[in-house]
Parts: sequence; structure tokens; C-alpha cells
Amino acid sequence: MDDDDETADRVTLAQVAENAGVSVSTVSKVLNGRQDVSPPTRLKIERLLAAHGYRRGARTPPDAPLIEIVFHELDAIWAMELILGVEKVATENGASVVLTQSGTRHAPGPEWIEGVLRRRPLGVILVFSALPAEFKRQLRSRSIPFVIIDPAGDPEPDVPSVGSANWSGGLAATRHLIELGHRRIGVITGPEDMMCSLARLDGFRSAMSTAGLTTTPGLVAHGDFHVEGGYVRALDMLRGPDRPTAVFAGSDLQAIGVLEAAATLGLRTPDDLSVVGYDDVAVAQWSRPALTTVHQPLRRMAEAGAEMLLRLRAGERTTTRIELATSLVVRKSTAPPPA
Amino acid sequence: MDDDDETADRVTLAQVAENAGVSVSTVSKVLNGRQDVSPPTRLKIERLLAAHGYRRGARTPPDAPLIEIVFHELDAIWAMELILGVEKVATENGASVVLTQSGTRHAPGPEWIEGVLRRRPLGVILVFSALPAEFKRQLRSRSIPFVIIDPAGDPEPDVPSVGSANWSGGLAATRHLIELGHRRIGVITGPEDMMCSLARLDGFRSAMSTAGLTTTPGLVAHGDFHVEGGYVRALDMLRGPDRPTAVFAGSDLQAIGVLEAAATLGLRTPDDLSVVGYDDVAVAQWSRPALTTVHQPLRRMAEAGAEMLLRLRAGERTTTRIELATSLVVRKSTAPPPA
Repeated sequence: MDDDDETADRVTLAQVAENAGVSVSTVSKVLNGRQDVSPPTRLKIERLLAAHGYRRGARTPPDAPLIEIVFHELDAIWAMELILGVEKVATENGASVVLTQSGTRHAPGPEWIEGVLRRRPLGVILVFSALPAEFKRQLRSRSIPFVIIDPAGDPEPDVPSVGSANWSGGLAATRHLIELGHRRIGVITGPEDMMCSLARLDGFRSAMSTAGLTTTPGLVAHGDFHVEGGYVRALDMLRGPDRPTAVFAGSDLQAIGVLEAAATLGLRTPDDLSVVGYDDVAVAQWSRPALTTVHQPLRRMAEAGAEMLLRLRAGERTTTRIELATSLVVRKSTAPPPA
Repeated sequence: MDDDDETADRVTLAQVAENAGVSVSTVSKVLNGRQDVSPPTRLKIERLLAAHGYRRGARTPPDAPLIEIVFHELDAIWAMELILGVEKVATENGASVVLTQSGTRHAPGPEWIEGVLRRRPLGVILVFSALPAEFKRQLRSRSIPFVIIDPAGDPEPDVPSVGSANWSGGLAATRHLIELGHRRIGVITGPEDMMCSLARLDGFRSAMSTAGLTTTPGLVAHGDFHVEGGYVRALDMLRGPDRPTAVFAGSDLQAIGVLEAAATLGLRTPDDLSVVGYDDVAVAQWSRPALTTVHQPLRRMAEAGAEMLLRLRAGERTTTRIELATSLVVRKSTAPPPA
């Protein structure tokens, strides 16, 4: 690899090397994510880099610039929308997209960071909520910018991120049902440990209380954002003593599960039960009846994230958090309640 | 970039440079896809490389090995399955996946090849049928292996490829309907210029004629592999004088369109009309009724393609064409015809 460190950096690099009792070339190897440095030495050098507040000047982009996008769950139904948004901005800027899948819902695995340091991308787009502090330090000391695209709605305050208006989306979905005349409205939101689930649920609650309606505890449930969770929770709710006339399903897949549960019990949608989804992914249109849902502008969120990344790369200051608007899309799964 | 050309190669490289009247370094730039060589000079050098049958020895893989996957249509519903298959094999082999989208259905755009030459991936997986001869020569002269994953079913004889058994799939879908007792069976296959459409249609015809059934011309149509195409063609067919009791829909999305058309005309599925899809993508399970369909093992096809690529990279000889089996998945959209 060509060495294009700035002279100003070399001083610090030499200091770090001296303090660590290693050569400058060893420090350089660690900066580039090379594997031929023993883990204890690497750890010592990383700590010194952090202690010195070392920042390498942005490297001259390689001949074949890359933008990385990292998912915790690549087969999520909305993953492709995000890829398409990043791909568009990358192509417009002569870059290619590298895709990686990390192990867990909330943060990438430890092997991932080494690969990023070796690939030296223009920047990294992370599709999950949290980045370990250690990784942040490593990326910052190499001047590799990163942006979180955060459909889960739990941004870290010190990391640039793009999200969408989950609370407003929950509010709009519920208001739509109230305006149609529904009073007993159930809600199936996502997992309790995801902020977007809570924000959508709070939007639901605010719409209810603003309209002077009470939320029965039996009509509030947490699903898994998949079809099965929506199906199981809706069966419980629809078989319960206080059957709702409408359900805000928290995601399109959960809404499909609710439709399925209604059909199992011989209820017609929307005549006997209105259903609102969330996300507006392609299946929302294909479902029968086509889903009324909250549009989350995923592709546009990804584009905004990639653009933010390139601005950071160019050394511009940028807003820390962008939140794009959601909007209600009314299709065929909602109607006034049965008389 | 480090220069790891073999000595044996250098002789030819020098010959090419001499014949072209340029320096060896200019030839090297062209081999690496660098932009700082004028187009006429680049063209002259590419022609001489081809004329000499020049092949560079496989380059030492870079520190951060890449496998490229190129789609003509990244938002195809089955694209994510293919990405997941490639991603699995890449991760197992310490490589990352680069994703690009090419302009047209049948071949990548001209700017794409330059990027590949600069990125020097372990190999390239192409998800479309044809690669221009010029691109093949360029990849071969740099010893970058390539494999075509070819759901469209039109492999080039001289390119390693992975497909699936489209004809057998069409046969199995149609036999299933015949065994249920259907005699008037319609077929909506894909576009006429895609070999997989023709293979599935021929499988349909063979099943029909083997069973002694005739295929009415009005019951054979070409769609676009999307919901809308299935809907429009099915409406025609179901309103026609010779309404079928079953439709083999050629793709799951087209099958969803057929279900929609049936519902529009007040026909129940499967009571009044049986429908079989093709692909077995996730929506097949979510549709109501859940679709009987032909499973195309997309993820496994992508894994097989990536494994083939790594074998080629390692210098192994490998089969030119792998075709994986398809299998019928019976769900709820098929039943005996109405009495």
C-alpha cells in the first residue's frame, strides 16, 4: 500500500511508536488493519492512539473507492430498499458498494472492524443502532467517517444518523382509524427493546388520549415485526373478551399476520376489522386487501445517509441527526367499523 | 499498488508494449483499469493483449479480498436470496461482497469493467445471461474468474454458470394440476426473450401433451414476471370464452396478479380457480391463499456459483454448467376443479 500520511501525522505516529516500544511501521500496520501484529501489541497501540487523540488525515481515496454498508439482518424485507438508496449515491460518485452482514441486532462483530481498516472505504453506513466505543475510536483515528441509518430509532447522540418519524407515524395511523369512527383499537408494536416500537406505540397512545379514548391493556401487544408475531398476537386479541374493530399492526409483515388471523376466525377485512401496517414495503401493495400503511421513506433515508457520509468525507460539518417524514398511505384494509 | 506479475508474464508484457509503441508501465496501467491512458491507446493495447493471448498470472489476493456480484435488476424480488448465498460463501472465505447494478437486462454497461479491473476482485458473479466478448477477454487476460448465475436460463457455452431446471419445473407444476383433475389449464409465462420463460412453457406443453390434453392458443400468454402482467393476462383469460379451471402463472408475482384477477371477477381460489406460481419467494407464503409454487433454490444457486468461482480462482478445473433441481411446493392455491 502506498503511504500517504501527512507529515503532521508522522510526528504523532513516531511518538506512539516510541511510547509503545515498536517501530513506526508496526503502528502503520495497526492503522491499516493488518493481521501480522500480535493482539497484545495491537491493543497497546490502539490504546496509545486513543490516548494521544491521534487522527490520521483522510487518505487519498484508492483507485476503486468503496462505500460500506453493514446490516445486522440482511434478509429484512426493507434491506433491499436501503441498498438501492446507497447504491444510487455511490454510483453517482463513482464508488462501489460493499455489503456485510454483522452477527447481532445491535452491533457488528469484532472481526468486522479489521476488514474495514484493510479495505479503507470512503466511509461506512451502519444499519443498526449502536457501534461499540472501541470501533468508533478505531474508525475516527483512521478518519473513516460513518453514518447510522436507523430504522430502529435509537440513535447515539455522537454519531451522525438518519431516521424517520416513528412517533408521528404511529400517531397518523391511529388518527386515521379514529377518524373512521373506531373506538376499540388494538395495537401490536414491535419488540420492546427497539426504540421504534416504543415510539410507534407512544404515537398510538397519544392519538388515543387526545381523542379521549382509553387504551385497554389487553389490546396492547408486542410482536416480532414478522408475520408470525402479528398472527399470534392478533389471534389472542380477536378471541379475547374485548375484540377490537381495528388494529394498528406496527409493521407490514405483522399486518399480514393480522389479516391471516382475521381470516382464520372468519372475520372480513375491512368490513369486520380494519388493519393498518407500517413501512410500506412492496408486499403492502400485494396483500389482499392492499394495506393501508405508514410509508417509511427507506430508499430516501439511505440516500440521505450516503450523501451525509460523502460530505463528512469531504471534511464538511454536517447535522448529526436527520429524521425524514413518514406519511399515511390509505389503501383497502381500513373502513368504518361495523355498525 | 504492489506489482506481483510473474517473470514469465513480463516477456509478453514487454512484447505488447513494444508492438504498441508504449512503455511497459502504460500496458500495466491498462491491465489495472487505470483511467490515465487515452482511449485509443487503451484500445490498441487491449487488442494486442487479446491477439497475443496474454494472460496475467492470478494476482496475489489483496489484504481485503472482494467477490463482486453484478445484477441487472437489483430490486428483483429474488435478488436478496442470491446476495445472501454469495455473502455466506464470501464470509466463510474471509472475503467481502461488492454489489453493482448494471444498466440492462442482458449485459453490464461499459463503465463497469473498468471498475472491476481496478478493484481486482477474487472473481465476479454475474446475474444476467450474456457478457460481451470484449469483457470476457479483458477479465480473462487479468485472470479474474467469472461465473454466471442464471435464473433466466440462457447460459453461454463458454462461461461457467449455475441455473435451475426450468423445464422440469414447468412440467411438475402442470402435472400437479392435471393430477388434481384439471383439463382446461391456462399458462402465463414470462417475457418471450427470456429462455426460462420458454423452458417453463415447454415443460407445460409437454405435461399437457403427455396427458393427451390440447393447449388452446387463447390460454397461453406472456407476462412480464410482475404482478401487473399476471393480473392483466389473467383477466383476459378468465373473461374469455374458454375459461380455464387452473392457471400455471410462471412466477409468484404473476400468480399474485392472477389471484387478484380472480377476486376481481368474483372467482374463489382454489374452489373456482387453481393457481400455481414459480420461484417460491417469501411472498408465496404470505399470499392468501398461500401459493402452491415451484421452488427455485436461489440461495443454493448463489452458493454454488460462489464456490465454483473460488475453485476457478484456485486454478481448479470445474464443470461449465450446474443446474440445480426445482421442486413443487404444494400449499393452498390448488384443488380439484369445480364439479
